[in-house]
Amino acid sequence: MPASLLHLQSPDPISVAKKLAERLAATAVERDRRGGHALEERELIRQSGLLTLSIPLEFGGAGADWPLVYATIRILAQADSALAHVYGFHHLQLAGITLYGSAEQQRRLLMATVREHLFWGNALNPLDKRTVATATTDGFILDGIKSFSSGSVGADWLTLSAWNHSVEGALIAVLPASTPGVTVQADWDAFGQRQTDSGNVRFERAHLPADLVLQTPGQAPTAQATLRSQVAQLIMANLYLGIGQGAFEAARNYTQEQARAWFASGVDKAADDPLVQHRFGKLWLLLRPAELAADHAAVLLDRAFKQGAALSAHERGLVAVAVAEAKALSHQAGIEISSQMFELTGARSTSAQYGYDRFWRNVRVHTLHDPIDYKIRDLGRYALDGSVPAPTAYS
Amino acid sequence: MPASLLHLQSPDPISVAKKLAERLAATAVERDRRGGHALEERELIRQSGLLTLSIPLEFGGAGADWPLVYATIRILAQADSALAHVYGFHHLQLAGITLYGSAEQQRRLLMATVREHLFWGNALNPLDKRTVATATTDGFILDGIKSFSSGSVGADWLTLSAWNHSVEGALIAVLPASTPGVTVQADWDAFGQRQTDSGNVRFERAHLPADLVLQTPGQAPTAQATLRSQVAQLIMANLYLGIGQGAFEAARNYTQEQARAWFASGVDKAADDPLVQHRFGKLWLLLRPAELAADHAAVLLDRAFKQGAALSAHERGLVAVAVAEAKALSHQAGIEISSQMFELTGARSTSAQYGYDRFWRNVRVHTLHDPIDYKIRDLGRYALDGSVPAPTAYS
Amino acid sequence: MPASLLHLQSPDPISVAKKLAERLAATAVERDRRGGHALEERELIRQSGLLTLSIPLEFGGAGADWPLVYATIRILAQADSALAHVYGFHHLQLAGITLYGSAEQQRRLLMATVREHLFWGNALNPLDKRTVATATTDGFILDGIKSFSSGSVGADWLTLSAWNHSVEGALIAVLPASTPGVTVQADWDAFGQRQTDSGNVRFERAHLPADLVLQTPGQAPTAQATLRSQVAQLIMANLYLGIGQGAFEAARNYTQEQARAWFASGVDKAADDPLVQHRFGKLWLLLRPAELAADHAAVLLDRAFKQGAALSAHERGLVAVAVAEAKALSHQAGIEISSQMFELTGARSTSAQYGYDRFWRNVRVHTLHDPIDYKIRDLGRYALDGSVPAPTAYS
Amino acid sequence: MPASLLHLQSPDPISVAKKLAERLAATAVERDRRGGHALEERELIRQSGLLTLSIPLEFGGAGADWPLVYATIRILAQADSALAHVYGFHHLQLAGITLYGSAEQQRRLLMATVREHLFWGNALNPLDKRTVATATTDGFILDGIKSFSSGSVGADWLTLSAWNHSVEGALIAVLPASTPGVTVQADWDAFGQRQTDSGNVRFERAHLPADLVLQTPGQAPTAQATLRSQVAQLIMANLYLGIGQGAFEAARNYTQEQARAWFASGVDKAADDPLVQHRFGKLWLLLRPAELAADHAAVLLDRAFKQGAALSAHERGLVAVAVAEAKALSHQAGIEISSQMFELTGARSTSAQYGYDRFWRNVRVHTLHDPIDYKIRDLGRYALDGSVPAPTAYS
Repeated sequence: MPASLLHLQSPDPISVAKKLAERLAATAVERDRRGGHALEERELIRQSGLLTLSIPLEFGGAGADWPLVYATIRILAQADSALAHVYGFHHLQLAGITLYGSAEQQRRLLMATVREHLFWGNALNPLDKRTVATATTDGFILDGIKSFSSGSVGADWLTLSAWNHSVEGALIAVLPASTPGVTVQADWDAFGQRQTDSGNVRFERAHLPADLVLQTPGQAPTAQATLRSQVAQLIMANLYLGIGQGAFEAARNYTQEQARAWFASGVDKAADDPLVQHRFGKLWLLLRPAELAADHAAVLLDRAFKQGAALSAHERGLVAVAVAEAKALSHQAGIEISSQMFELTGARSTSAQYGYDRFWRNVRVHTLHDPIDYKIRDLGRYALDGSVPAPTAYS
Repeated sequence: MPASLLHLQSPDPISVAKKLAERLAATAVERDRRGGHALEERELIRQSGLLTLSIPLEFGGAGADWPLVYATIRILAQADSALAHVYGFHHLQLAGITLYGSAEQQRRLLMATVREHLFWGNALNPLDKRTVATATTDGFILDGIKSFSSGSVGADWLTLSAWNHSVEGALIAVLPASTPGVTVQADWDAFGQRQTDSGNVRFERAHLPADLVLQTPGQAPTAQATLRSQVAQLIMANLYLGIGQGAFEAARNYTQEQARAWFASGVDKAADDPLVQHRFGKLWLLLRPAELAADHAAVLLDRAFKQGAALSAHERGLVAVAVAEAKALSHQAGIEISSQMFELTGARSTSAQYGYDRFWRNVRVHTLHDPIDYKIRDLGRYALDGSVPAPTAYS
Repeated sequence: MPASLLHLQSPDPISVAKKLAERLAATAVERDRRGGHALEERELIRQSGLLTLSIPLEFGGAGADWPLVYATIRILAQADSALAHVYGFHHLQLAGITLYGSAEQQRRLLMATVREHLFWGNALNPLDKRTVATATTDGFILDGIKSFSSGSVGADWLTLSAWNHSVEGALIAVLPASTPGVTVQADWDAFGQRQTDSGNVRFERAHLPADLVLQTPGQAPTAQATLRSQVAQLIMANLYLGIGQGAFEAARNYTQEQARAWFASGVDKAADDPLVQHRFGKLWLLLRPAELAADHAAVLLDRAFKQGAALSAHERGLVAVAVAEAKALSHQAGIEISSQMFELTGARSTSAQYGYDRFWRNVRVHTLHDPIDYKIRDLGRYALDGSVPAPTAYS
Repeated sequence: MPASLLHLQSPDPISVAKKLAERLAATAVERDRRGGHALEERELIRQSGLLTLSIPLEFGGAGADWPLVYATIRILAQADSALAHVYGFHHLQLAGITLYGSAEQQRRLLMATVREHLFWGNALNPLDKRTVATATTDGFILDGIKSFSSGSVGADWLTLSAWNHSVEGALIAVLPASTPGVTVQADWDAFGQRQTDSGNVRFERAHLPADLVLQTPGQAPTAQATLRSQVAQLIMANLYLGIGQGAFEAARNYTQEQARAWFASGVDKAADDPLVQHRFGKLWLLLRPAELAADHAAVLLDRAFKQGAALSAHERGLVAVAVAEAKALSHQAGIEISSQMFELTGARSTSAQYGYDRFWRNVRVHTLHDPIDYKIRDLGRYALDGSVPAPTAYS
């Protein structure tokens, strides 16, 4: 594959993302039906060069800021939210290296990512404590299962968490997926986000060398380190938003090009029906707040990310508030638009040939990552007394 | 098959419907995935005896009133809304015979239905005027296609409409599905209600004898005749409601038995979480109005149905208002509950093994029969000046 | 005053209520502005004879069932929800006598109510425990304050609760408002329901004779006794609903008669604007569920009331569920309609001459009797596991 | 009065606005009750120096950009939305001079405004065509009435529109309020925004000199000129938003300091109740989108304003879209928060001493300036095909 592509020499990652989105869109309906691993499309992503987008210039990456990275996630999600998730989570793993890792680890792992065109996957689900790390002389032995491991199938490297019983705490580490004893199971069977490769990863006496441990068990996380969950949450928000935008665009196009005016409407074209226009306006008023909030949160997150170790807990908390706003608004927009779009497009638009139900199925599955009612409660607490969300894997 | 079943000698059609629903439920997830024609399950319906439920006692039927018929539709829809639709539309065709047909036609066709255990299907979509009826000496010749023909695949007899160019009006008639020149195409491919057998019916020089014509072309419909669309609309409402009830029940059971309390909730069981309880309460407040309105409309419809030719246009209009209320409320309840249920059940409940997305897919497809915004507008007009909806195929 | 009026010999209490509502409506806007005690209008209510509506025939009353009593409350609330509240709470006190009192107390107090045309008020707020009852040889001495005493100003008799420190429990009793040591303070100053006479009642060494105690302190309430809070809650529901209906009717009339079509609408009359019609339809879909649920709950409550001592806790609980549904739906309908009606009627309808803001102010103040979010939570609990609300003064 | 105040030499208009808001807040409840003209408070505004905020530096003003002007309007609206409206509309009149007037008119009128501490009012309601301008040799004679003239009572100068029958078009002009034949009537009687001085202005053979005509009758408005309605609409949006913020803050403070936990909540403080926190979160998710959208629109408007005559119709249209988003979201936030706040603060918070109902009354009256459903429809049209709203006095 040509280096020019792989190193994203294009002056405009947005254009690259849009072209990639077009290629993904061409097969998205069919691949949603099929499910499973999208080997070929993951290669398209790799070849686009976008995998190095968030890597600092000094390590050979494109050095993009977070608003730009999120913009590309959103563009891909409009076309194919499953692969956009895999893509976004790749950048999440890279962010983890920067937030948790030593300077040496950052240099080594990020340069390797550029050089070897690595694709990263996730095996870090902190609520699943079945994977256990037992200390050895030169690292740890990993045993157990890790569920909801997005992007793990087909990943070159994984970020993982594992529970250490000696200190009753979790470590965070990276590991090549090809490590003996690591098996990635393609057993994801949800009704949406079907190609996110979010299966179970199984560890059987897998050796984790000490220099791949980013955060040792029980290590108290810094404000900087806890920013990782905000990077992740804002990826979610942009995925939901991208799905909402994609659904909106589908409804718009269908209404303009194919929908029939209802016989009782008194107009010739569906797009001229005041009730249709009004409902489009209502959906627009769900979409725009999500866009504004996601953009706003990305700016704040980027600023906090760049503060590094200087980031205070309160500043981190304000990022969490902005991200929670973006996530809740995107959640609502995605769910409502992908469900209500059919009130606008009508019965014929439910034909399998369009695959329009995938918007709802994708956003419905993905928005269950953590409960919206607790996100709303967190915002309520902040609104009440200014207290920021406690840092967790979800807030 | 034993006559005892086929003639519904059970004192309690509700029990019969519940048992039937249980049998349908056992395979509903798998059949939803497969789609296509449910030959075996349609035979289960036939054997239950419920096909004669709405037929007057004098013709050998069970003589049930409409509230009871709708109750059985709703029960089946909780388990399998596609077959409930096929079942409901069978009774719609029987209602059509009573509303349109002569005394002789009623006697002959309804008695045959009892005697021969007939299953009726629909080919009446009035918005599709591609099927043409050309008068002959002893009836009509039918040519053309009729779309959205629910229950047509596997039906013994069909009700149909066809356009007559001489008088620029439609006739309504019945015809055995086995009539030469009639082809029923199993080409329904929507993403929900996948086993409703709602394909295209194709007529190629099919002969329609005069004595099977229920309403001649251009004949001005009586208030009684226009009640058919209300029977149909209230079938829709009960299907949406049944889906909403089925989704609610699934959420309830899952929350009670399988859902995990969110780690930040401070409670041990999801069912004890105040935010979970509150959201269940909100959904309940969508479900109950739909139930109350559907029950209310069924009583009004039954009364109007029994008035027969004495029914006035205004009385018919008041039925249409009550049915529109029931349909709009059931629509909202079905869509919201089937989508929001996942906020309560969480990520693991999206596994394909549960098939919980079928509730949304089914109600989403089915609620597009006619636009809710026009139903709401009709209610607004009534609320404004008391004017009842003009009788159409949808109001 | 003529006995014929006072004994409600009219065959139709609904007509009596409508005529009374018309008279109240004539001055409602002006009296809302003024606030305070509506002496003259309370006399109109007394003269209507409706104060005996819920009293059994055997005691000289009209013997109406609860659906009829609630219907009259709703009718009055459409015109004047403050006086409708006073009227409804009069019947609540009568219900309390039946639910708590001995056969002798019932006979004596209810017959006196008929004979002397008594108007009853409330001083029972169970959350306010500042009124204390100290036992004496022949009854109790009452001391302290009772807040939110609706209808107390101008009442002939009061129902009251008072806390007894010996048994750490409350008694429930009745007392003439003219009892020495009882002062009713006209100090209600909320921004709505301004003429509900809901001030503080002050007791200063007031003597409560033993035969006026309906329920002794610490007495375990029966299922029958706890029905009183449901009678009260359903009065609330019907008041909210009546306000919603009144606001809807005002919006309807204004739109028909005075509203101007928006210049961009393309129609001549506001009532012909599809967006106006659609919004009326949306509000209608809030109003109708409340009506259906309130009617349904009244039937259930009436049945439970008539079961008397035979009422089981579970049956009582099912009434509480139906009443909670009615109250929550009426709350939502009242609040939304009284606020949204202005989107339909426009800027000129905010002139003080119409007094249309009183609908929102009245329903907003009154719906805060107890929090809707806990009503919704109760329904959620019932929906989850079938557990009925625990009997309290609010559920 | 000291010049230092009048010329806003404070480096920070935000601080000035906050101090002014505090002073207005002290009497806001009482003045809302009283209604009428707030002479003293208008003088406080005048003395604050904020009346010159939007005037370019070259004419002696503070030269603030629109985001800053809108920020001050929002701050005042949190405390007193009626006077904030009067203040905002003063700046609208100044904007009109810039958008419509010649360079000479701008210089003369704006410098006079600074020099003489002028307060401007509105008499421009374009839907009211009762004021007629008849050409004379040296200008026009004005006759007739102009309704909804916000800020006219007590204004030094007015902007007005008048209909000219010769060319069937309107002129736009300015005039001293003291001009013979001009009478400002303090007859505004709406139930909210009671001190906006929005009465009728009556013209009786009032002489309008030619050099005070900003736009001659029938003159085709430029894109620049039509920006005035966007300046006005975004003033509305910021007023609604300020009211929403004020109501939110009142609910927050009351909940923190005075609200009692509901007895069934199981918590000690209302602010710890999960259902209370959740509802605060929901309201926050209404407020934040409005804030983000209003800020976004202000930036766009400011850019367009500075483009002056170079502004294209499409660029002007994109401003109109952003402003419509801000206005619709602020409308929804203001109405919902000011009504729902009471679900959080409870029955005791309805006491007249708090005057909390003024938030709803103010935003309810003010949001009827033009119908939200047409704002939503405009957004729907834009969303459907990218067509921007046609320039009118409202879009």
